[in-house]
Amino acid sequence: PLSKLPNVGLTIFTEMSQLALQENAINLGQGFPDYPMDKQLIGLVNQAMLDGNNQYAHSNGIPLIRQKLAQKVADLYHSNIDPDTQITITPGGTYAIYTALTSFLQKDDEVILFEPAYDCYVPIIELNGAKPVYIQLQAPEYAIDWQEVRSKITNRTKAIIINSPQNPTGSVLSKQDIQELIAVTEGTDIIVISDEVYEHLIFDDLQHESILKYPELLKRGFACFSFGKTYNCTGWKLGYAISAPELMAEFRKVHQFNCFSSFTPTQVALARFLDNKAAYLELGKKMQAKRDFLQNALKNAPFKPLTSHGSYFHCYEYQGGLKETGIDLAKKITAQYKVATIPVSAFYHDGGAPNQILRFCFCKQDTTLEEAGRRLSIFN
Amino acid sequence: PLSKLPNVGLTIFTEMSQLALQENAINLGQGFPDYPMDKQLIGLVNQAMLDGNNQYAHSNGIPLIRQKLAQKVADLYHSNIDPDTQITITPGGTYAIYTALTSFLQKDDEVILFEPAYDCYVPIIELNGAKPVYIQLQAPEYAIDWQEVRSKITNRTKAIIINSPQNPTGSVLSKQDIQELIAVTEGTDIIVISDEVYEHLIFDDLQHESILKYPELLKRGFACFSFGKTYNCTGWKLGYAISAPELMAEFRKVHQFNCFSSFTPTQVALARFLDNKAAYLELGKKMQAKRDFLQNALKNAPFKPLTSHGSYFHCYEYQGGLKETGIDLAKKITAQYKVATIPVSAFYHDGGAPNQILRFCFCKQDTTLEEAGRRLSIFN
Ligand SMILES: CSCCC(=O)C(=O)O
Ligand SMILES: CSCCC(=O)C(=O)O
Repeated sequence: PLSKLPNVGLTIFTEMSQLALQENAINLGQGFPDYPMDKQLIGLVNQAMLDGNNQYAHSNGIPLIRQKLAQKVADLYHSNIDPDTQITITPGGTYAIYTALTSFLQKDDEVILFEPAYDCYVPIIELNGAKPVYIQLQAPEYAIDWQEVRSKITNRTKAIIINSPQNPTGSVLSKQDIQELIAVTEGTDIIVISDEVYEHLIFDDLQHESILKYPELLKRGFACFSFGKTYNCTGWKLGYAISAPELMAEFRKVHQFNCFSSFTPTQVALARFLDNKAAYLELGKKMQAKRDFLQNALKNAPFKPLTSHGSYFHCYEYQGGLKETGIDLAKKITAQYKVATIPVSAFYHDGGAPNQILRFCFCKQDTTLEEAGRRLSIFN
Repeated sequence: PLSKLPNVGLTIFTEMSQLALQENAINLGQGFPDYPMDKQLIGLVNQAMLDGNNQYAHSNGIPLIRQKLAQKVADLYHSNIDPDTQITITPGGTYAIYTALTSFLQKDDEVILFEPAYDCYVPIIELNGAKPVYIQLQAPEYAIDWQEVRSKITNRTKAIIINSPQNPTGSVLSKQDIQELIAVTEGTDIIVISDEVYEHLIFDDLQHESILKYPELLKRGFACFSFGKTYNCTGWKLGYAISAPELMAEFRKVHQFNCFSSFTPTQVALARFLDNKAAYLELGKKMQAKRDFLQNALKNAPFKPLTSHGSYFHCYEYQGGLKETGIDLAKKITAQYKVATIPVSAFYHDGGAPNQILRFCFCKQDTTLEEAGRRLSIFN
């Protein structure tokens, strides 16, 4: 049959995770913790099931978790969100992004995005018959040149996708960036998709600039979040989207015929667990320590750190004797040194300019990071 | 903004469930059990979480559950399915249908479906720019006239959606129907979407005619299933799709950028629980008893039963003094008699011909069904 996504293969995350298993390598590729999540939260899920919360949740999410999230947003971002019309619980952050884009993208619409980019954006845009418009960011800072953004806007520009803290680079948008984004989109119909799944994983005393803080952006934007990234349970596949009521109404139309509702027991459990603010407020510091731990573990390895201010990830430029670039380099290192990573080339639609930059995931036990450092230090 | 689904409002299920709450009515509308699920299965999920199964599952589902499902399909339908290339675990049956249709539908493709129809099919078709082609089934049997199907096929026909046991009517396709379907689609490129979420909820000694039993159909079809319907946990939102490898490859491309993977702990738990064959083999008899219990409870109420041979549902034709039809009748009965149902009119894109047929959900405790019968028997 004719493929709607002829250029799509297996995601790089699955490919490298499979290779890590095959090669019995330490997996610093796909972004997930290898340490246990909170036992109390597991207990709350068990209790929710035993209490009989096993039937369809409301399509938008159970009311209590939406109320608690509105409260959280008020506390953190000083923004008043209506839980009835502006929040929808989803089976994960990727699904929230998928559903948001699918709710408004029409054939031939253009969507601006920044590369390296998380790998779901482009196929989602293409599935909707729309066109990705790429802007390349430059190592080591991967900062946005807003003049370039202006130059790419046409009368077909329907959306712009931002992602801070960014996957794969760990770059973080500043207040200044947000002011530029406001200026660029003001007076247009451009919808801002803000992938904020790493909202709490931010380092070096930086503040997360959620679009929820900016009414000018929220009125034209979707902010997409992930519980998995915040509570060390990426396999729970629970997230949420927040937007203006008119945009959310369209989002919910798609959602009710895509997944309809999300797993009920974790919603009940997380609604209670959200009262525990320390769980998310302390996360940035913990994760920063891991970033630093990995960097120290790699200090004698032939890898030069680029800049990471957030997310699960830190990109390094390989400086050893291997001549391969991109995926070939990542595979060779996995096979020879038993440490799997993700090549940054995988985050470009066309592989980008050949380079030797690899993304390391550092949300791992110290012993894991230490052993990875040891393996890579005896490298060539 | 321009809506991609201008005709879609709140789903009837959410609307009637909300009304039931407001009116403090017994909810025989939305299809979900009001009795507890198996405690042992809950225990397995808890154990899976405590054992650390909280990170991303494989995008296609954990290998063990796919193996167990292939075994189940071999046992039940004498069909050899390759778990690596033909089964994908999804966050629910609706999501499986959404993802299947989205993986191949192109603009202006035509999709044949039978009304009354489950309410997700048409919006999914329209979101993909394709066109629903309707065939109306007639009460009380809601049987398919295959001559009419033949007459609706054009060179744009891309898919045909079947659903047995059927929601909302409880009608069941026979071997003869399947032979007709094979004849109609043979030598064409038509893809068969087979919504089999009620596979085990089949009564009166009928056999479920899964397309998995028919290689001629499986090679061009997607069969979509739901664990929620089988294990009394509709809020768990776990299901799966089975198809030919070439079709499944396209399905997985969409899936990996829609939800990517499904909740891990229930996959681990259900992989083990699938060994318990009695849990699904005995379900039909139990549910048949509930159908009969409701019918008996309504014997003095002004409702004439139509035919239901499966699913959670039984349609009744109202024969009392109220003159309203469709949604107005359902709402009036909810308000006045405190029993919520779903009007069959909601399963037609245009409401269908005005009638007084209501769908009752009978997967409820006997006391619930008894009380509903009592309330409706003093009915004018
Ligand atoms: C959804 S699998 C990929 C996990 C992830 O976000 C990443 O590794 O970048
Ligand atoms: C997904 S909500 C609807 C549940 C259901 O299948 C029905 O009531 O028909």
